[in-house]
Amino acid sequence: MKKMLILSVLLACGPACFSQQVEKFPLGDYEELTDTKPHDGVEVWNKMKAPVQFCWGTTDVRYKKLDVPDAKQTGTLRLKAWKGERVNAQAVLWTQKDLEGAEMTVSELKNGSSVIPASAVRTHFVRYVMTDELNKDGSGGCGVRENKAEWDSSMVADVLDIVRVREVKARTTQPVWLNVWVPAEARPGKYKGTLTVSGKNFEAMKLPFEIEVVNRTLPAPKDWVFHLDLWQNPYAVARYYQVPLWSKAHFDAMRPIMKMLADAGQRSITASIMEKPWAGQTEDPYHSMIFRMKKLDGTWVYDYTVFDKWVEFMMNEVGIKDLISCYTMIPWALSFDYFDQATNQVQFIKAAPGDKAYAEYWGTFLKDFARHLREKGWFEKTAISMDERPMEAMQEAIKVIKSADPEFKITLAGNYHEEIQGDLYYLSIPYGNQFPAEVKAERERKGQISTVYTCCTEAFPNTFTFSAPAEAAWTALHAVAGGYDGYLRWAVNSWPIDPLRDSRFRTWAAGDTYSIYPGPRSSIRFERLVEGLQDCEKIYVLRKELEAKGATGKLKKLNAKLSEFTPEGWIKTNKKSPALMVKEMNALLNEM
Amino acid sequence: MKKMLILSVLLACGPACFSQQVEKFPLGDYEELTDTKPHDGVEVWNKMKAPVQFCWGTTDVRYKKLDVPDAKQTGTLRLKAWKGERVNAQAVLWTQKDLEGAEMTVSELKNGSSVIPASAVRTHFVRYVMTDELNKDGSGGCGVRENKAEWDSSMVADVLDIVRVREVKARTTQPVWLNVWVPAEARPGKYKGTLTVSGKNFEAMKLPFEIEVVNRTLPAPKDWVFHLDLWQNPYAVARYYQVPLWSKAHFDAMRPIMKMLADAGQRSITASIMEKPWAGQTEDPYHSMIFRMKKLDGTWVYDYTVFDKWVEFMMNEVGIKDLISCYTMIPWALSFDYFDQATNQVQFIKAAPGDKAYAEYWGTFLKDFARHLREKGWFEKTAISMDERPMEAMQEAIKVIKSADPEFKITLAGNYHEEIQGDLYYLSIPYGNQFPAEVKAERERKGQISTVYTCCTEAFPNTFTFSAPAEAAWTALHAVAGGYDGYLRWAVNSWPIDPLRDSRFRTWAAGDTYSIYPGPRSSIRFERLVEGLQDCEKIYVLRKELEAKGATGKLKKLNAKLSEFTPEGWIKTNKKSPALMVKEMNALLNEM
Repeated sequence: MKKMLILSVLLACGPACFSQQVEKFPLGDYEELTDTKPHDGVEVWNKMKAPVQFCWGTTDVRYKKLDVPDAKQTGTLRLKAWKGERVNAQAVLWTQKDLEGAEMTVSELKNGSSVIPASAVRTHFVRYVMTDELNKDGSGGCGVRENKAEWDSSMVADVLDIVRVREVKARTTQPVWLNVWVPAEARPGKYKGTLTVSGKNFEAMKLPFEIEVVNRTLPAPKDWVFHLDLWQNPYAVARYYQVPLWSKAHFDAMRPIMKMLADAGQRSITASIMEKPWAGQTEDPYHSMIFRMKKLDGTWVYDYTVFDKWVEFMMNEVGIKDLISCYTMIPWALSFDYFDQATNQVQFIKAAPGDKAYAEYWGTFLKDFARHLREKGWFEKTAISMDERPMEAMQEAIKVIKSADPEFKITLAGNYHEEIQGDLYYLSIPYGNQFPAEVKAERERKGQISTVYTCCTEAFPNTFTFSAPAEAAWTALHAVAGGYDGYLRWAVNSWPIDPLRDSRFRTWAAGDTYSIYPGPRSSIRFERLVEGLQDCEKIYVLRKELEAKGATGKLKKLNAKLSEFTPEGWIKTNKKSPALMVKEMNALLNEM
Repeated sequence: MKKMLILSVLLACGPACFSQQVEKFPLGDYEELTDTKPHDGVEVWNKMKAPVQFCWGTTDVRYKKLDVPDAKQTGTLRLKAWKGERVNAQAVLWTQKDLEGAEMTVSELKNGSSVIPASAVRTHFVRYVMTDELNKDGSGGCGVRENKAEWDSSMVADVLDIVRVREVKARTTQPVWLNVWVPAEARPGKYKGTLTVSGKNFEAMKLPFEIEVVNRTLPAPKDWVFHLDLWQNPYAVARYYQVPLWSKAHFDAMRPIMKMLADAGQRSITASIMEKPWAGQTEDPYHSMIFRMKKLDGTWVYDYTVFDKWVEFMMNEVGIKDLISCYTMIPWALSFDYFDQATNQVQFIKAAPGDKAYAEYWGTFLKDFARHLREKGWFEKTAISMDERPMEAMQEAIKVIKSADPEFKITLAGNYHEEIQGDLYYLSIPYGNQFPAEVKAERERKGQISTVYTCCTEAFPNTFTFSAPAEAAWTALHAVAGGYDGYLRWAVNSWPIDPLRDSRFRTWAAGDTYSIYPGPRSSIRFERLVEGLQDCEKIYVLRKELEAKGATGKLKKLNAKLSEFTPEGWIKTNKKSPALMVKEMNALLNEM
């Protein structure tokens, strides 16, 4: 009787019971969720050549945690890089037995008397996160996913951990990511280094590698031509790190995350100038960074303390300073917050562009905002951002902006509209759409920025946690191939509730909302995106150089290769593997 | 087939359907709810001496709408009044047939060449409102009443309408209220006047009345000794009148309501210095009249615009200026609002007296508040109000107040507590409780105010819409009889959703939350309360006069009569009818 009672208690205590013991928002080490997929059995693991193996793999593969990996290379891995470029590699460790205290070390890289210091090298244990899949019809990843059981879920390698020592369990694969940031001042030549794995209960194993630094220099990210716009979410950071919004602890938490963005060439600061600009679609909704009070006498008071602090932080401490994108004048829910002195409550004006109340709410604000921005010296860097709405609404919003200050910059991430594109300093249009050539040329002459975006819509290319790693690089290359000035993604750290363990969200395919993890931790997706962005800069450099030289042949070859990175170009290649396409592009860029 | 369809549509359209046609918040004429109680049938109505009758009734009776009233007097009604006093009378009109356009007129009142002008006379059609009853055990009216069906409901005469012309339906009773405000400068003597009812389809009927003005003067309400404290709810007015809070229209709506209070001798301005001081117990919760912002740097900003505007209105336009009661430092829900600059949201600090956060929230505010009040010249008139809480909590709150400014006045409406009474400038204790005589005397010497309150607790005396009209006067007389300085009721216009038609609320017996109706319309309860308050002032005047004269006999007689107006005194009278008690007191006060 007694035993049965105990058993029933155990049965009653399901996953929820045990998950209480899991730290809510880990920043250090953490337990991954269980991989419940079919996987290699003991008999497969028993066939290993040695109890522990360590080989070079490829950055194109998300190695499965419970399968014996397809990796053989133990000889020197050869990489090529420009001066100032970051290059990636992936090694794989797998084992029949538990490995205690596995740890990576990398020697300095030597080329005779020249050295790339070990500090230029990052190594990460690759960690596994829960993902889902495309919509059942393969059409993309949009839509609501409240019931996770409706989508096939699995654990995928994506997180690049910052934890230095790991216990590797018997019959598991532990990939290792290697990233070398070649100093801009490195002497060209072949640098040799070694990646070592060591631990308490197994003999250290070494993998040699070589980086051939070619005699070309990649500009520093701050000088990149490519216009990168990955939207930041400060509110997610405050929640996950459990720190007060805009406190020193909050900025301390954000600094390394935002520096990762700056190092990827990020150009825009994401600022929210109203409550829930996207109707709270992210786990952590954006609040207004600007306080508005409607006084009893009907006048308005604005306070920019939070906005200023955020912008100053991004500009002065992080180094992202080209554009302050202010969201939004046409939100999805046409409801605008203000603090009402009379009721001592936050109230919402429901008004559509074209309404008198809309013009008053925004017109009064924008005049004061323009005054404030000029005072701060930011007016030229600030853009009032709109979301996609019916044409008339957008035209009415533009009217209100122009009437507040005709010199206000305006942005839109939405469809291409002939009627208003001329008013848009910055226009990002969806993947698969193009700017008419003469419009693009005219926009360039006027100093207007024209980019492309992807979101949940695209089955390919995308950066879901289950997307092929090369798709991230492919996406960046597509932006240049398609004649755009850059790339936009609406979220880079809009974390779901438990982003390190589970990348699924209540809407969209998993990973749609972020590619930087708390810690901060990079990801396979983010590293491969930076790879693509570097390729873009290389293309800009080479084009300039080849044009100056009149090297038409090489230029043609480069552009022909690049043209594969478009929907039409890709079809012409018979849908070649994106991994191969990127590999070929990398090689071409390094040999030109 | 077609007819059946129509019928089913009609059936589907129940009360909700028809009620849509009812104006939501009427200010002018309106339809009463249906009286569904058993009532006099046609055969009773057919026995009327004439098709239409008009007689004097009594102010002690709520005449039933559908019953033939017990009223016979058509000869002169004789009233007595002091100069400056308001006197009430009630007439009853009842009819076998529909009366079209019934209308009241009153002549000027004449005493030889002396005149009380018609402008000093108010007449009101008495209107019917839905009420409920005491708790089933007769213990009072406290508790939740979500399910109205659990209490017996009926229509009662209470509202004194401002509509001048009424259609009176066949076989109904239409009472008429008469109020004469004898001018303070009226010459003593007997004034004769006539109350006339006329209409389109019946002959005018007249009722003569006479007011004997005695040679004593009742002071003007602003000079009354009695400390009256009926809590005002500006938020209910804004909602019912559908006007923006604190707008000109809002103040225009409040002015006549608050003047009714001023004319009743109201002394205190009800101010809310935090969000929902009583946890939103009224249909319209009180918001904070003071804006607090916690800035990013941790400092606090306060804005007193609303508070100032409300207080200035009450003082300068209404004439209520003795005390600003600021609710509350110990609310029932220990949750304190502020606008948080970081999150751009209203946030709540949960903290109890004694907590560091409590002391910081209130201490910081009270220091700034004291500074502001001194600037306005209001510091001496302002009291920080507490609600009943455990002794330690009250002591901690007092500590915080005293440490912010030791001269801050403090009030409590709650039980008598020896330990803290000395700190309380104003202390109102529940009906049935008494201040120890020496404490009361000491409080008087110190200029501290000591009053009594009733609320839902009392089955008698009370001012529910079903309470006997005389109980209102009785309550006021009790305050003097019990040796208190005045009377407090926690609500005078905290209207339920449809106050003109339905006085029931989701909590407490009907009418508990208000005695002034929208319009504003007075009520039988409010007029009878003013009657009692006038009696109190007469007692103060007479006591002073008799003491000065050394008229011990008369003084003794007066005090003996007054002593009946206490729980013990009433029992000694064998629970005499309160109506008779008040009537006897009125007579005594007029003949002394």
